[in-house]
Amino acid sequence: MTGPTKGQEFSSEEVKLALRNPGMHLEGLRYPVTPIGMHYLLIHFDIPLIDPADYELRVSGRVRNPLRLSLEDVKARPAVTMPVAMECAGNGRAHLSPRPISAPWHEEAVGCAEWTGTPLGPILEEAGVLDDAVEILFAGHDRGIDDGIEHDYERSLPVEEALREEALLAYAMNGEPLPPQHGFPLRLVVPEWYGMASVKWLKSITATSEPFEGVQQANKYLYQSSEDDPGTPVTRKLPHALMVPPGIPDFLTRERSVRPGPVLVEGRAWSGFGPVERVEFSADGGRTWEDAELGEPLGPHAWRSWSCEWDAEPGEYELRVRATDATGKTQPLEAEVTWNQGGYGVNVVQRVPVSVG
Amino acid sequence: MTGPTKGQEFSSEEVKLALRNPGMHLEGLRYPVTPIGMHYLLIHFDIPLIDPADYELRVSGRVRNPLRLSLEDVKARPAVTMPVAMECAGNGRAHLSPRPISAPWHEEAVGCAEWTGTPLGPILEEAGVLDDAVEILFAGHDRGIDDGIEHDYERSLPVEEALREEALLAYAMNGEPLPPQHGFPLRLVVPEWYGMASVKWLKSITATSEPFEGVQQANKYLYQSSEDDPGTPVTRKLPHALMVPPGIPDFLTRERSVRPGPVLVEGRAWSGFGPVERVEFSADGGRTWEDAELGEPLGPHAWRSWSCEWDAEPGEYELRVRATDATGKTQPLEAEVTWNQGGYGVNVVQRVPVSVG
Repeated sequence: MTGPTKGQEFSSEEVKLALRNPGMHLEGLRYPVTPIGMHYLLIHFDIPLIDPADYELRVSGRVRNPLRLSLEDVKARPAVTMPVAMECAGNGRAHLSPRPISAPWHEEAVGCAEWTGTPLGPILEEAGVLDDAVEILFAGHDRGIDDGIEHDYERSLPVEEALREEALLAYAMNGEPLPPQHGFPLRLVVPEWYGMASVKWLKSITATSEPFEGVQQANKYLYQSSEDDPGTPVTRKLPHALMVPPGIPDFLTRERSVRPGPVLVEGRAWSGFGPVERVEFSADGGRTWEDAELGEPLGPHAWRSWSCEWDAEPGEYELRVRATDATGKTQPLEAEVTWNQGGYGVNVVQRVPVSVG
Repeated sequence: MTGPTKGQEFSSEEVKLALRNPGMHLEGLRYPVTPIGMHYLLIHFDIPLIDPADYELRVSGRVRNPLRLSLEDVKARPAVTMPVAMECAGNGRAHLSPRPISAPWHEEAVGCAEWTGTPLGPILEEAGVLDDAVEILFAGHDRGIDDGIEHDYERSLPVEEALREEALLAYAMNGEPLPPQHGFPLRLVVPEWYGMASVKWLKSITATSEPFEGVQQANKYLYQSSEDDPGTPVTRKLPHALMVPPGIPDFLTRERSVRPGPVLVEGRAWSGFGPVERVEFSADGGRTWEDAELGEPLGPHAWRSWSCEWDAEPGEYELRVRATDATGKTQPLEAEVTWNQGGYGVNVVQRVPVSVG
């Protein structure tokens, strides 16, 4: 089983990150709601062990009435359940050259879970955010070192984003208490943004009068053309469609073999900027495209199913799929045009080579 | 974030296998029963989508009374629940040099779930295995190509192993229906063997009068000293202890920083040959060892907790842990002595470098 390998090489650090941070199996696109254990994970540090009986969420900073909420307090508030297509901002990074060294995602850093929790807005209203507050800062119980700096994982949102009705403090996933690896006992879910905004193992919420300049905001999650570029913040999910790779795989190479005949190619598509309005499929490596049939999403923040009949004749093919949203945003055909220092937002069209015979 | 990397390099195939086949987060050793989504996965091909209403298990071959069992038939039989320490036979492979190319496990390919199902033995008795049967063959619904051969995933057990009372047909994991990725709706669980024996998405059980010579038995899962060595079959789990890496991690390198003072180092240990009777801990790279305190396992096939007080003083350390079972089997200090063609059973002692300061 030793022997030559094809293509690019990856570092030991990337492999260890991959082993801790699984992607969704792409055949998981068949499920409207991703089963627990198939949803992608990006855990920056270690999974904290939190006793729910001792758990307390502090809401403070530039507010009139600081709050301390137990898990029971949070669960006693009005509850909503919401399917959300979540995606890591680094999804697609492995397609870049040179490749930024971090979690080596290809396209699998996605999932659509059903989150249950209470809206964040009314909690902020109860705390009474003061007029001089510009951001709401969310800190997790997960602590470690990144870019040489020890810190709790922390991310902020502009006040108006934190007050959007879809921002949720979630304590359940697919009807079960949050699994430890998804933020037990309480996490933030910011449906339209990439996953880094949805802080897990939530410890505190702080209204601040200055923009947050911590590691995960000022050093990471920026679109930077070079190290010297101050960059712009990574926020909403760019449009992205993925297909279930048809046929059967080779164990080692994951190359696909398809039997000749009609094939129903199917998948899901999403965007954080607006509803997906068009999905196109190509069976000839992008020379020609046809419109896929679209299904209805389970909710405004869920992904949308699509499908396309393909008459597979013997030969070699490269299948592709491309989503366009209501704002006109679509996916690039080549990864290079998305290149940035951290490898964020690489929503290049998926390519699935298949052999029909 | 681009830049030089340390140590060995991995192929694109290994990274893609890692992204689909997560290991357990080592901090998951804190839980006596591994939460769903933290248990390791090794999925040879794709996760099949199976409608439980149509599901049927066929029991045939060298039996007097072939059976066809629906999922309801299986669930109506006597049920047992059993915590089982499961480990991939390829765990530790990444420590070998040269490294066999497959899933690049370091030590994380483990988990201890609570499986609920019905014992296999009485089903085989009801089918009436004939005297000339030598093996029981288990086929899964997962199909793909490995070593150039298209096949359903299939593995056999000698008849006497299949009749052992702990062999289970499981339909629940941690009290929930099997998740798709763990074999929904029904899988085999062979508690003392490495995970390859516990066939998922079980399609059929066949008593055979000849030993099975399929890919996953005759080409894979053999201890072979070279390609020409016919090898010996991989069967039971070798003894293995793991620790929760203490302190906090660096995001990219996963290197650990520990504060000076008393540290409770803890973990779990298991063996498929007999109960773990001793766990030793070393804080000085294996120069000196002390006995860890052992907890009681949740059951005869579960892992066993261990812990050790370590007084961490400023400096650089390499922590190690080693298990010994009731048969006297223990773990090697160096990976090289375990080298084999497929990288199986590499139960070298875990090494955790930490910086105290």
